[in-house]
Amino acid sequence: IELAVDGGDHPDTIATLTGDPLAGVPVNYTGERHELDDVRLLSPVIPRSKVVGVGKNYADHAKEMGGEVPSSPLLFLKPNTSVIGPGETIIRPAGVESLHFEGELAVVIGRICKQVPVERVSEVIFGYTIANDVTARDWQASDGQWARAKGSDTFLPLGPWMNTHLSIEEAEHLSIETRVGETVHQDGSTSQMVRGIAELVSYVSGSMTLLPGDLILTGTPAGVGEMRPGDEVHVSIDGLGTLSNPVADA
Amino acid sequence: IELAVDGGDHPDTIATLTGDPLAGVPVNYTGERHELDDVRLLSPVIPRSKVVGVGKNYADHAKEMGGEVPSSPLLFLKPNTSVIGPGETIIRPAGVESLHFEGELAVVIGRICKQVPVERVSEVIFGYTIANDVTARDWQASDGQWARAKGSDTFLPLGPWMNTHLSIEEAEHLSIETRVGETVHQDGSTSQMVRGIAELVSYVSGSMTLLPGDLILTGTPAGVGEMRPGDEVHVSIDGLGTLSNPVADA
Repeated sequence: IELAVDGGDHPDTIATLTGDPLAGVPVNYTGERHELDDVRLLSPVIPRSKVVGVGKNYADHAKEMGGEVPSSPLLFLKPNTSVIGPGETIIRPAGVESLHFEGELAVVIGRICKQVPVERVSEVIFGYTIANDVTARDWQASDGQWARAKGSDTFLPLGPWMNTHLSIEEAEHLSIETRVGETVHQDGSTSQMVRGIAELVSYVSGSMTLLPGDLILTGTPAGVGEMRPGDEVHVSIDGLGTLSNPVADA
Repeated sequence: IELAVDGGDHPDTIATLTGDPLAGVPVNYTGERHELDDVRLLSPVIPRSKVVGVGKNYADHAKEMGGEVPSSPLLFLKPNTSVIGPGETIIRPAGVESLHFEGELAVVIGRICKQVPVERVSEVIFGYTIANDVTARDWQASDGQWARAKGSDTFLPLGPWMNTHLSIEEAEHLSIETRVGETVHQDGSTSQMVRGIAELVSYVSGSMTLLPGDLILTGTPAGVGEMRPGDEVHVSIDGLGTLSNPVADA
């Protein structure tokens, strides 16, 4: 789907595309157009290889977690089976008391690449979307490694769409806000990232080949907190819309 | 490829198959047969979703790492971009001094599944292969999370083939040996696993949906050690062959 094809004349509609730009298949418009309210958006991307998260990349969040900003980026992986789309339900697993939201800007990779120099990172970025890096704090503390705490099913809401028209500079100056119901918990800006987008993508690609559809989650601002069954959590980023997901018990 | 189709009459040959059993596409033999020496085997599987490792699942290895067996399985993830096949080169990245081998039995998942009861795990296993869970010890210590230390390119040699004819009980009684050159470093048995195959698969599937081609690495016995550029490392498991890979600097 493409929201901006007509320059914004129909802001609440989507146009149907053919092809898959992430697979290198040319994209064409079918001419079909739907009201946004009449369709259900899915996750804009299902990573075929990996989702790399970056821990403690906002200084205020590192502080609220009782730590410092790491001396090099703190990388972790989330599996593609944790992905859900906008409106889909985040499930709090049995045995988890403290399930936290972490609103984040997600970078979508568009090209096979490795050891990308900082100054060429813009060439390998396909676009941006919103991620909620759902985290089971009890498992994060008990397990040590974060695979289960951050990689369980439904722990990676993505969407509602990808924005493919932002420069890195623009993506680094977006307001980011997370609400639970009406209450604002995270109210920051991507300009507060300790390490910027180019540095992060370059660093990750230094050890791991990146593939089209891979995601880099750029970290979360201060204000993380609990989601409880019955809540609805909303992550909003300028120009990327609002990613909303209800929460339920398993 | 299939090594046992003729009951072992041609042990050093392979038969060509059509189809993809992991994708549910029926498999047929073309009748073509090659000498093993005339072909290059690739990784027998490229996971489409995830590789889940289990830390410290052999008591003697937990002890040599200076720790205890964790009270619940210690899970970590490796990306599919870290996979290489038999004979491919393990690359020691720049800045890594201590690159370790960890010979392991790998379980290949054959069905989409979640929350699999222990007694039904055999229904979701497609087969078994050998893995070398290559680990950069310096990064493992400095990073805290193991994504880079265990997830870098070439850090997951797999192969040389899958054995689809083993019961869980058989797979839990295989000798496993890792050599560097002629020197044996790991000499154990899968019977020494703290948690068995059924318990591990059931546990992982409790939080993450498993997909065909996903791998569960079942942990490494005592005796891990360094690989240096110029070495060749060999992991052998009864009935699964020998996975050999040279090591080089980046």
